[in-house]
Amino acid sequence: MNIVLLSGGSGKRLWPLSNDIRSRQFIKIFKTGDGEYESMVQRVYRQIRSADPDARVTIATSRAQVSTIHGQIGEDVGICVEPCRKDTFPAMALAAAYLHEAAGISEEETVVFCPVDPYVEKEYFELFAEMDKLAAKEDAGLVLMGIAPSYPSEKYGYILPADREKMTRGVAFWEKPDVETAKDLIGRGALWNGGVFAFQLKYMLKKAHELLDFEDYEDLYGKYETLQAISFDRAVAEKEENIQIVRFDGPWKDLGTWNTLTEAMEENSVGDATLNPACENVHVVNELDVPVLCMGLKNVVVSASPEGILVSDKEQSSYIKPYVDQMDQRIMFAEKSWGSFRVLDVEDESMTIKVTLNPGCSMNYHSHERRDEVWTVISGEGRTIVDGMEQPVQAGDVVTMQAGCRHTIIADTELKVMEVQLGKEISVHDKRKYELEN
Amino acid sequence: MNIVLLSGGSGKRLWPLSNDIRSRQFIKIFKTGDGEYESMVQRVYRQIRSADPDARVTIATSRAQVSTIHGQIGEDVGICVEPCRKDTFPAMALAAAYLHEAAGISEEETVVFCPVDPYVEKEYFELFAEMDKLAAKEDAGLVLMGIAPSYPSEKYGYILPADREKMTRGVAFWEKPDVETAKDLIGRGALWNGGVFAFQLKYMLKKAHELLDFEDYEDLYGKYETLQAISFDRAVAEKEENIQIVRFDGPWKDLGTWNTLTEAMEENSVGDATLNPACENVHVVNELDVPVLCMGLKNVVVSASPEGILVSDKEQSSYIKPYVDQMDQRIMFAEKSWGSFRVLDVEDESMTIKVTLNPGCSMNYHSHERRDEVWTVISGEGRTIVDGMEQPVQAGDVVTMQAGCRHTIIADTELKVMEVQLGKEISVHDKRKYELEN
Repeated sequence: MNIVLLSGGSGKRLWPLSNDIRSRQFIKIFKTGDGEYESMVQRVYRQIRSADPDARVTIATSRAQVSTIHGQIGEDVGICVEPCRKDTFPAMALAAAYLHEAAGISEEETVVFCPVDPYVEKEYFELFAEMDKLAAKEDAGLVLMGIAPSYPSEKYGYILPADREKMTRGVAFWEKPDVETAKDLIGRGALWNGGVFAFQLKYMLKKAHELLDFEDYEDLYGKYETLQAISFDRAVAEKEENIQIVRFDGPWKDLGTWNTLTEAMEENSVGDATLNPACENVHVVNELDVPVLCMGLKNVVVSASPEGILVSDKEQSSYIKPYVDQMDQRIMFAEKSWGSFRVLDVEDESMTIKVTLNPGCSMNYHSHERRDEVWTVISGEGRTIVDGMEQPVQAGDVVTMQAGCRHTIIADTELKVMEVQLGKEISVHDKRKYELEN
Repeated sequence: MNIVLLSGGSGKRLWPLSNDIRSRQFIKIFKTGDGEYESMVQRVYRQIRSADPDARVTIATSRAQVSTIHGQIGEDVGICVEPCRKDTFPAMALAAAYLHEAAGISEEETVVFCPVDPYVEKEYFELFAEMDKLAAKEDAGLVLMGIAPSYPSEKYGYILPADREKMTRGVAFWEKPDVETAKDLIGRGALWNGGVFAFQLKYMLKKAHELLDFEDYEDLYGKYETLQAISFDRAVAEKEENIQIVRFDGPWKDLGTWNTLTEAMEENSVGDATLNPACENVHVVNELDVPVLCMGLKNVVVSASPEGILVSDKEQSSYIKPYVDQMDQRIMFAEKSWGSFRVLDVEDESMTIKVTLNPGCSMNYHSHERRDEVWTVISGEGRTIVDGMEQPVQAGDVVTMQAGCRHTIIADTELKVMEVQLGKEISVHDKRKYELEN
C-alpha cells in the first residue's frame, strides 16, 4: 500500500512548543508503553507500520521539516518537498506527480492520502486497507473516510452518506456549517470528512492536469509558488459524483489546539512540573530545564519552551494565533536530522548556541561572511575541519574561526558544543555551503 | 540619625524571583518616576535619604547579600554581616555591638531599627525623626511604631496603646492572634507592630548582655551560630514595661507574598508579557528573554526567572514555601556588586555561565582545583590576568584556564563573557582566592 502523509501547518496554535521548523506534529508529548515520549509523527508512523509493515510511506512537507522528520522516524521514508505552503490540493497534486515520476509508482496503483496528525487508535489505520481495496476497483473514483461525529462541530467538513452502511456512496458535502446545521446534519447521518482519501494515482494526476497547467513533476515544482491555495475538498471532492465512503466509528481527535491536545495527554505534566492539590484540570508541558510550579489553577494549560511561555485558560487557548503572529519569530530551538540546537543567549553583537550532534553526524561544511565563531566542546569526541585541516576534538577543546573560514564538526560520539557567534550582522542567511574535498 | 535596616529572609515566598542570594528585597519591580524599575531596598533607601539626607544607614544582613546591596545602593552604606540567619534579637544585638565598637557610635546615641521591606510612602520614614526624638529622652526605654491596621490579620503582632493619641504608652502585646481576637483587638484600638524600634544604643547593648553571654562584638560574631533564634518582640519588647508608641496612620504593606506584592505593582506586567483582554487581575513578572503570553486567566500571578516559573492563583500563592523547599536550590542568577551572572546550561561535566562585569570591576583573583574554564569575551574591553600574566581582551578573544591556574578578569568597559566550566566535580565551593601581587 502507498500512503502519503500530509505534514503541513505552521503550528502557531500550539505555541510555544511549535514554530516554523517544529510544527505540532513533532512535539514529543505522548507517553509510550516504555515510558518514553513520542511525537504525533512518530505515533502515526508507528501505527501505520503496525497496521501494514509493508506500507510504502511518503511524507509531503516543507523543506524546513525534512531534517526533523528524518531525525524522528529515520531515513526509511520518502519525502516529497513542497517549495512553499499551499493548501492540500496543490500538495496532493505535487505528491502524485512525485510518486509517479520520481518514485516510479504506476498510474494504476492506489494511494491513500492522510493528514499526519490525527490522534486515533490502530483501527483507523487498519481501515486504510479497506479503502485501498475499494479504490483499486475499476472506475472506483474517490474513496473517502467518513468519521462518526462526536459533537456538532463548526470546525469540520461534513459528508452525507447514502445510508448508514459501513461502506456506501457519498451524496453531499458541507464545509464548516454552523452548530444548528451541524446538529441537523448529524441527525441525518452525516459524517465528518477527516481528510483521508484513497484513489488510483491516475485519478489524482488527471485532476491535477485538468485544474493546473503543468507538464511534469519538475515543471509543477518550479511553478508551485504561483499556484492558488485551495483544498482538495473544495477543488475535487465536493464536485466529485463518484464518491465512496468508508465509515470510521472509533475515537478520533484533531489535536490542533491546546485544548484538544491536552485531552490526549495521559498525565497532567510532561517535563519538570509541580501541581499543588488545589489545581483542577491543569496540564503542563515544560521543555525548559527549570521547574514550573502551579498552584490553585483551574482549566489552565501551561507550556514553557525556549521560544516562550504560554499560560492560558483552556478554552481561550484556541484564540492564540493572532497573538503569536505578533511575536518576534526567532527560532530558539530546533531538532534536526543531525541533532539539535538551542539559542542560549542573544546580544547585539553576539549569539550563543548549544549544538548537540548525534554520533556519526556532522554539520555542513560552511563559512560565514560576517561573523567569527568560537566552539568550546563540552562533551564527547569528534573532529573539526577548518579550512581543510582536520583535527580531533574532545571536551575542553576550543576552536576559533574567523569570518570567511570554512568549517565543520563531525561527531564520533554524541558531541555537545557551545558556539559563540560574534559580529555586527548575525543572520541565519549568512551561510555558504561547500563540498568537502577529500 | 542612625538607622539600621534589617535585611533578612530567604525570600522563598517570592520564588522564582528570589533565592538565597537574591531575596525579595532586591527584586526590581517598582516603577520609578523616570520609567526605570527599583527594588525594595533601593526604594526604602531612597525614601530614607529623602526623609533625612544625613541619616547614617547600616544594613544588617548575611554575607551572601553584601555584594548585591553594594551593587544596588552603592558603597555609602554600613554593612553589619551576620554569620548566619538567626531571628531579629540576635541580629539587633550584633548590629548594636557593631555600631558601638566597629562604627564608633556612642552608647548615648539613639538608633532606629527597621525592616528593609515595608512598602510605604515617605511619611513613614519621616516618623523616624519623632521616634528618635522620643528615644533620646532620659529613661525613654523602648519606642515602637504602631501601625493602624487595615484588616484583622492573623499574620502580625498587635500592641495595645494606652489611648488613641499619636504618641502614647503601650500596654500589652499579642503575637499573631486568630481573626476573632484580632477583630476584638482592633475594636479596642490595638495597632500592628511593624518591627520599627527606636532606643538609645545602651538600651540594646544592655538587653544583649543580659540575655546573651558575650564579651564584645568580635566574641558575639564568633559565637553567633550558637545563639538561639528568637525575635526582638519575644525576647525584649513583650517584656518591656516602658514602651512608647508612635502611631502611623498611612498606608503600609508587607510585600512578603505574591498576593501582596502584586498589589503594589503599578502595571500588570514587568518584562516581556502579553495579557489578552480576557485576563482579569493578572500580574506577570518575567525576567527571561522570551515572551510570556497569558490568555483568559483570573486572579493569577505568573513569574518567570532563570530559577523557574510560577503560575499561581493569587490567594494560593501564600502557600508556596513548602513547594519551594522541595526544589533543587541551584542558584541560576545573581546580581553582585561587580555585575551579575546567569547559568545558561548545566550538563553532567560542564556548566556554561554568562558573566557581566560592570566597568572598572573585576572578579577575585582565584583558582579551581577540579575544573578547567574557557572564557569567550562577547562584548566590551578589559584585561585578564592568568598566572600573573596580564593581557588585554575584547570581544572575540578566548582565554583557556587549566585547573589550578590563577585567574581574574578586569572590566575597563562593561564586559560580557561566556564562561564554560569543564570538569567532573563542578562546585561553587571549589574556589581559592589569592591576593594580586603587583
